[in-house]
Amino acid sequence: MEKYVTLAHGAGGQQTSALIHDIFQKYLGNPDFTADDAAVLTSPSGQLAMSTDGFIVSPSFFPGGNIGKLSVCGTVNDLACMGAKPLYMTCAFQIEEGYPLKKLDEVVQSMAKTAKEVGVHFVAGDTKVAGKGQVDGIFITTTGVGQIQPDFHPQGNQAKPGDKILVTGDVGRHGCTILLERNDFQIQTDVTSDCAPLWHTVEAMSQVTKDIHVIRDATRGGVGTVLYEIADESQVGVKIDQEAVPVQNHVKGVCGMLGLEPLYLACEGRMVVIVPAEQAQAILDTLHTLPYSQNAAIIGEVTQDHVGKVVMKTSIGSETLLPSPSGELLPRIC
Amino acid sequence: MEKYVTLAHGAGGQQTSALIHDIFQKYLGNPDFTADDAAVLTSPSGQLAMSTDGFIVSPSFFPGGNIGKLSVCGTVNDLACMGAKPLYMTCAFQIEEGYPLKKLDEVVQSMAKTAKEVGVHFVAGDTKVAGKGQVDGIFITTTGVGQIQPDFHPQGNQAKPGDKILVTGDVGRHGCTILLERNDFQIQTDVTSDCAPLWHTVEAMSQVTKDIHVIRDATRGGVGTVLYEIADESQVGVKIDQEAVPVQNHVKGVCGMLGLEPLYLACEGRMVVIVPAEQAQAILDTLHTLPYSQNAAIIGEVTQDHVGKVVMKTSIGSETLLPSPSGELLPRIC
Repeated sequence: MEKYVTLAHGAGGQQTSALIHDIFQKYLGNPDFTADDAAVLTSPSGQLAMSTDGFIVSPSFFPGGNIGKLSVCGTVNDLACMGAKPLYMTCAFQIEEGYPLKKLDEVVQSMAKTAKEVGVHFVAGDTKVAGKGQVDGIFITTTGVGQIQPDFHPQGNQAKPGDKILVTGDVGRHGCTILLERNDFQIQTDVTSDCAPLWHTVEAMSQVTKDIHVIRDATRGGVGTVLYEIADESQVGVKIDQEAVPVQNHVKGVCGMLGLEPLYLACEGRMVVIVPAEQAQAILDTLHTLPYSQNAAIIGEVTQDHVGKVVMKTSIGSETLLPSPSGELLPRIC
Repeated sequence: MEKYVTLAHGAGGQQTSALIHDIFQKYLGNPDFTADDAAVLTSPSGQLAMSTDGFIVSPSFFPGGNIGKLSVCGTVNDLACMGAKPLYMTCAFQIEEGYPLKKLDEVVQSMAKTAKEVGVHFVAGDTKVAGKGQVDGIFITTTGVGQIQPDFHPQGNQAKPGDKILVTGDVGRHGCTILLERNDFQIQTDVTSDCAPLWHTVEAMSQVTKDIHVIRDATRGGVGTVLYEIADESQVGVKIDQEAVPVQNHVKGVCGMLGLEPLYLACEGRMVVIVPAEQAQAILDTLHTLPYSQNAAIIGEVTQDHVGKVVMKTSIGSETLLPSPSGELLPRIC
């Protein structure tokens, strides 16, 4: 008989204990995982990075992943962007009454698998159950603490004129996947989410050189939004070559039909990396050897002029301003 | 003109930046607060405590507080229960499209005020906006990191036969308040939530003695559930004296009319404290000098028999087993 989450699972009594034991402890358990009010952890030396992210993707399962995998990748990648090795994570669930326990089981299994791949430990969690109609299925908020690696401090305000701009893979697949899942466009295609945990990718780049100026994951708002943020924070211009931006043919096709710019579609396993020109090829070569960055590419460079703007050289050779992100780009995709 | 949260506020573009600047940065800003993917923090020495909690209280404003104050108190108190001084917090918002910006402003103001009282810094945040009907108003998940104080390690498995059991104030006010707000019982009364941040309370107790065996905040499931948890974790019995349990007259009245046991109503500013008998009076005297624990009382003791059970001496002198918490006690109150 199929079993469902009930309000009693969230009330703090016997059913809550059973849920923790049967699902959360089962998959996420480790010596640091706590049943107490808070986990007790060894403090890492030096500097900490701390990040939080809430996930309300609909649908919660999609080609290439589910909200559980996404919720670990999102926070792992935010820490990785700061040059921090993910150590500890917490997760908070808000689940709609009636959510199938089997799906919850799969979601938590995906979280455990992704965390294991990265080497991050879940240390505490929380579950609330909301009445039917009060949440849409399942929301997950993850928070992570990482250890900042010595002498490695990529930051959004460090892009310098002359730097090269890389993306770690083809862009827009996550946004395109969710868009197709959520709408009935009658489009037959084969796109899967790029959702992936990128700590090992960042670690490998840091072994090539510690002189990486910026790393940003291109989630909500996509690569285009990230480039505008960096141009603003670093007070530089950004110039990219449209033809150099890797976009899967399936994604290109969908974007063509729907009139979307792939640079504004969310990714959940892609980073924008900005490095001194002389390091760009070595970084690119390393990225090409790693599982989540085989399509990495150099897509442009940082400029002294057009401060705060992103200029795109189009495929027909003209230069155009990438429109500044605004409004409701593509809601509920991350 | 009244302004509302829109989907564009959550899309990661210009409106998201404006929301962060106008509300979150305005109230929660401090030198540790980040606009980057993760905050960079000084790692505390020794051991860390880390805790997360999601808040989905309905209504989001209630007599004595709102969901913002609650979301800070909840995580601060979880850290305090572990003997940890709260240092850093993150917050993740999931907001329903159409939520009034004025209410969001008030919620975030309350968070800032409560954090300031405790001395904890917000360091990172996240905002997602869900479509109308996909969340019920506003959900907040907070995560905190604290510094465990040397030689002070209260834990749920350390209750010992002979220990005295205290509560830091009258019980059940938060649960009673929310119950009355959510239902139209036609009961005229004057109950306000006990919601309060208790780090300074715990700090003061630790200055009396480091030999405090257990501290637990009595949130979901109330004092009764916490006592059962401790009896189980410590493998002891618990005996309490019904007449010694402080309950406000208003709360007694409501419980009488509705047939509720105040020991199972949630508190959001009350702790169960278990100490060696010889320390109990000194702790109680200190609690009585502090703002959030003026009604603190010794309510019972830890026993060798009735392992895993909570026995209550009733007002008529008989002894009865407090029923074990199960099922849907009082949902959505925290």
